[in-house]
Amino acid sequence: MAREHLIDIARSVYRSYGFAPIDTPALEYAEVLLGKGGEESDKQVFRFTDQGDRDVAMRFDLTVPLARFAAQYVQELGVPFRRYHIAPVWRGERPARGRFREFMQCDFDTIGTTSNSADIETLFVINDLLEKIGIERFTIRVNNRRVLNGLLEKHDLLPHTVSILRALDKLDKIGREAVIAEMVERTGIDPQRAGRVLDMAELKGTPEEVLAVLDGMLAGSQTGELGLANLRELFSAVNSCGIPKERISLDVAIARGLDYYTGTIYETLLGDLPEIGSVCSGGRYDNLAELFTSQQLPGVGASLGLDRMLAAMEELGMTQKATTPAPVLVTMFDASHINEYLAMGRALRKSGIGAEVYPEAKGIGKQMKYADKKGFRLALIAGADEFSQGVWQIRNLKEGNQLAVPASEIIPQIQSLLK
Amino acid sequence: MAREHLIDIARSVYRSYGFAPIDTPALEYAEVLLGKGGEESDKQVFRFTDQGDRDVAMRFDLTVPLARFAAQYVQELGVPFRRYHIAPVWRGERPARGRFREFMQCDFDTIGTTSNSADIETLFVINDLLEKIGIERFTIRVNNRRVLNGLLEKHDLLPHTVSILRALDKLDKIGREAVIAEMVERTGIDPQRAGRVLDMAELKGTPEEVLAVLDGMLAGSQTGELGLANLRELFSAVNSCGIPKERISLDVAIARGLDYYTGTIYETLLGDLPEIGSVCSGGRYDNLAELFTSQQLPGVGASLGLDRMLAAMEELGMTQKATTPAPVLVTMFDASHINEYLAMGRALRKSGIGAEVYPEAKGIGKQMKYADKKGFRLALIAGADEFSQGVWQIRNLKEGNQLAVPASEIIPQIQSLLK
Repeated sequence: MAREHLIDIARSVYRSYGFAPIDTPALEYAEVLLGKGGEESDKQVFRFTDQGDRDVAMRFDLTVPLARFAAQYVQELGVPFRRYHIAPVWRGERPARGRFREFMQCDFDTIGTTSNSADIETLFVINDLLEKIGIERFTIRVNNRRVLNGLLEKHDLLPHTVSILRALDKLDKIGREAVIAEMVERTGIDPQRAGRVLDMAELKGTPEEVLAVLDGMLAGSQTGELGLANLRELFSAVNSCGIPKERISLDVAIARGLDYYTGTIYETLLGDLPEIGSVCSGGRYDNLAELFTSQQLPGVGASLGLDRMLAAMEELGMTQKATTPAPVLVTMFDASHINEYLAMGRALRKSGIGAEVYPEAKGIGKQMKYADKKGFRLALIAGADEFSQGVWQIRNLKEGNQLAVPASEIIPQIQSLLK
Repeated sequence: MAREHLIDIARSVYRSYGFAPIDTPALEYAEVLLGKGGEESDKQVFRFTDQGDRDVAMRFDLTVPLARFAAQYVQELGVPFRRYHIAPVWRGERPARGRFREFMQCDFDTIGTTSNSADIETLFVINDLLEKIGIERFTIRVNNRRVLNGLLEKHDLLPHTVSILRALDKLDKIGREAVIAEMVERTGIDPQRAGRVLDMAELKGTPEEVLAVLDGMLAGSQTGELGLANLRELFSAVNSCGIPKERISLDVAIARGLDYYTGTIYETLLGDLPEIGSVCSGGRYDNLAELFTSQQLPGVGASLGLDRMLAAMEELGMTQKATTPAPVLVTMFDASHINEYLAMGRALRKSGIGAEVYPEAKGIGKQMKYADKKGFRLALIAGADEFSQGVWQIRNLKEGNQLAVPASEIIPQIQSLLK
């Protein structure tokens, strides 16, 4: 129930921005999936030969299927194409805490536009998603790959991008000196040039302050200046669209997805549980489907880490204990009155109140135990006495009290008790 | 979008009766799935050896996983256990119109009770489901396997049950005489005894009339009389719970799932498209999980044929054409006002109105073509003139007209236009 609730929230937020749902088959031809996520990822793919001698595999993410889907249908769909996709993926890896061989991904992407407006709205979606889930304190860390690329370009370090980013990724863990040492060792550049990358990565301050320093650092690099202009536009929109300023930080050290993202990058940390890692991440990419089509398909999107978010919500005491989606249990005591019990269930549902009718005429103790276990909020009780008097007992299961109510007043009474 | 909408309806109806969602993994150990649905079904299972040398298979229905799940967790969950499960299943068969190798099942079941009350509510769920989908004319055909078993028992035909039911299943197609001939050929019984089975199967009339004739036919058979009592209780509840009488028929010829169902049986035909077959079927079974546990787990449930229902809705013109879940498109004309466009999108969403912001400042023609194609209902338009006057144009895309509205009145205007 908690997972379904979280998926509901994600869907409603995605839909409110005009993202439409798609689904793709769990099985794709192996050639569609393999070679897309690197060797490590290929090893984890569940792959087999089916009854028709087809070499097939189960999707390991929703991005490769989206690329295949977009390449196939983009002419028909037109751009911009905004889709969300909430579905399981499979990886044959060793399961660990919060890591499973089957898990849900919860992606949304805007495809077919290079406009920074789509990047800004991606940030808005992440903000609304976390808000609607009920997270009060969170930080969305934003960066733009062009800023880092601009600096590397300015210092003739572009050929070493991958090595430098790999080293940079360890900054939090191993510290400045060790990162510089690794950069020097991997690329052969002198420590001073490596230090300049660290100077930028370690910039702290408000987005405006950081942007001002970056202006100087990147002056003359076209790539870097474009990245800065996009970030500036993004923070301007954050301010004028009423998003609390303290929630959005500019963090020039983050560089998710070494080869994949090319522009804006997003990470989301929970204020009360940062150590669980980013719960919603994404970014802009230049060409989604280059392996499937010659058409250029740029896009931007992000993905809610559903299982990680659920784990966090459990840890923060944000998930409900009830295992029934219905708030009312209609108990059954006198099987000869079955039609009255069933009709009461129908009357409640007709008024929009979920109600389960206990299916057997058993003792009160057994039925109350069931009601408690499942987490019903109210129980309706009637036996021979009540039927002869035309009343029902409404028991408030949380407070333990009970009152007799004439049949005609049951619905409004329950509506007010559930409020 | 149409599929997601249908799933939403199913979920809300199931939830209103207290059914809770569960999910199980797509992959189970092959030994869990194989040998449960017969040889034909085993052949269709996608099965392979995974990276950990495990013999695994993709589920071919949601019933076997439910049996495994219930056997494993029923002690913890307690009974009655009401669950729904809406998820894809896979069968390596030849695809045909409305038949796919991957398709969704949409099951609900009440487990752990033999009470007829659960059978009656299963019928109610089917009724509410079809109503909420918006089907005006439909018939739920009900039967009880005990009625047929009672008759076979009375005439010493029980050992021939399977052969007799197989022949009976063809009644609509090949007619009375051919069915009798097949029964005689397969079982060696004399044509008169075969004819008695046909007499019962061909009974026509209101449930009350049919039940009255059956009373005579089954007098003395304990099984048959129990079946009749259950059916009588069910039709009594239908009448006293306000379900239109003409929707529920008693059809003693139906015998879905030869070996599986043991009590009440349901089939649902659409009044305007009966030839598409049953869109929601199910029944009562004595022991769900006998292959996994020694605990007796009786239950009753049914399954919405999601893909078939979608096909029917398309044929009946009941699916919407729009491919966007948002009713409003905020167009963009002057990139220097990007914050105003984005803020308008946010203001609409804050009032509960889904809105997509077009991400690029392009010509009106291109944006209107996009709006038409996606099926937006309203477009908001503002350029330099409108911003200087503090107004927005609201274009009604269906009617083709347009009016200028002060910014402060946009939300109420749009709310009233969307009503």
